[in-house]
Amino acid sequence: MKVYGATISPMVRKVLMALEIKGLDYQVEFVIPFNTPEGFEKISPLKKIPALVDGDVSLADSTVICEYLEDRYPETPLYPSDPVLKAKARWFEEYADTVLMKVTAEGLYFERVVKKLMGMETDEEKVQKNLKKNMPKTLDYMESVSPAEGFLVGDSLMMADIAIGSSFINAGYAGFEPDSSKYPNFAAYMQRIKAHPAFQVRMKEDAKFINKE
Amino acid sequence: MKVYGATISPMVRKVLMALEIKGLDYQVEFVIPFNTPEGFEKISPLKKIPALVDGDVSLADSTVICEYLEDRYPETPLYPSDPVLKAKARWFEEYADTVLMKVTAEGLYFERVVKKLMGMETDEEKVQKNLKKNMPKTLDYMESVSPAEGFLVGDSLMMADIAIGSSFINAGYAGFEPDSSKYPNFAAYMQRIKAHPAFQVRMKEDAKFINKE
Repeated sequence: MKVYGATISPMVRKVLMALEIKGLDYQVEFVIPFNTPEGFEKISPLKKIPALVDGDVSLADSTVICEYLEDRYPETPLYPSDPVLKAKARWFEEYADTVLMKVTAEGLYFERVVKKLMGMETDEEKVQKNLKKNMPKTLDYMESVSPAEGFLVGDSLMMADIAIGSSFINAGYAGFEPDSSKYPNFAAYMQRIKAHPAFQVRMKEDAKFINKE
Repeated sequence: MKVYGATISPMVRKVLMALEIKGLDYQVEFVIPFNTPEGFEKISPLKKIPALVDGDVSLADSTVICEYLEDRYPETPLYPSDPVLKAKARWFEEYADTVLMKVTAEGLYFERVVKKLMGMETDEEKVQKNLKKNMPKTLDYMESVSPAEGFLVGDSLMMADIAIGSSFINAGYAGFEPDSSKYPNFAAYMQRIKAHPAFQVRMKEDAKFINKE
């Protein structure tokens, strides 16, 4: 299997985590959204990352890809089998892909890290506005749903945890960590899931990438 | 089951179509996003529509709800069972929920219909810009994927068709129809799926709502 994208992207990381935890072989082809290779729209119609090629199957969108990996390679499940828990899991993934994408990625990581790597100027005013206006309600929600122990929807790390964790890992790269005195459950939950071996592998790779540039 | 939302919303229509085709009983509780009832965030954390209550299960997000209905009430399937086709189906639904939401809803239906119903002024400049800048590439893509006969991913109307169809039905309420000389496959496909009895029921209900105001 081939994953197209930048390994440090929170959306690409979702796919890499799923592949690693399921023990599937894969290669990464480095693609960034601003400069996609000729013909990339045949794999990813909107030229977005991640995209996956598995034999003669081409797929785009991190959630579509992760659900596909689950359906086609069900060993080591990353979604609960119970329909109600599975729906809860999908809600958290959707929340991460939409709300957290805006708050932790577009309004924070993208401004402070991606723009810097690309030689562009951070719009720190935008970042501060985001941290004041959007971040507190996001953290309030995360605190309200974070379990005191274990994971969001199952007995092990699943896609819901991967999606949420992945977003806040990139917020961390932009210098933001949840305040453990205000958000004790969420801060502890984040520490717990970041300790997972698959996240550790990814974060070590990310460190090389960030330090190289 | 109780569906919270406005029946004319393309996202709410996805859920109503799923319930109707699966033959499940439901009631609709009228909710609009601008003025949600007290405590609605307990059902829909972002106060968005649609939301669903099924016994003690509360869910938000049209895709999360439709996947839940499929998992919990599998009779009359609305997603293919093959993992590759199911992934394709999910891609089309994601495309509808993101790209079409912007092009056919936010930049068109919302401006010309919703704003009018609410006594606000249509930003026709925004609509024209959207129709010139975004609509052509959207229609090019839809034409490239529309089947000459039948449906997007199966032998019957499924969620992929429902999501795409639902978006363009609302574009129709805003006076936009795809040009059948430029987009013959897509225009014919839209006519074909709009003729489905479940879409016909919904569109008759919509007509009452639009004409009432």
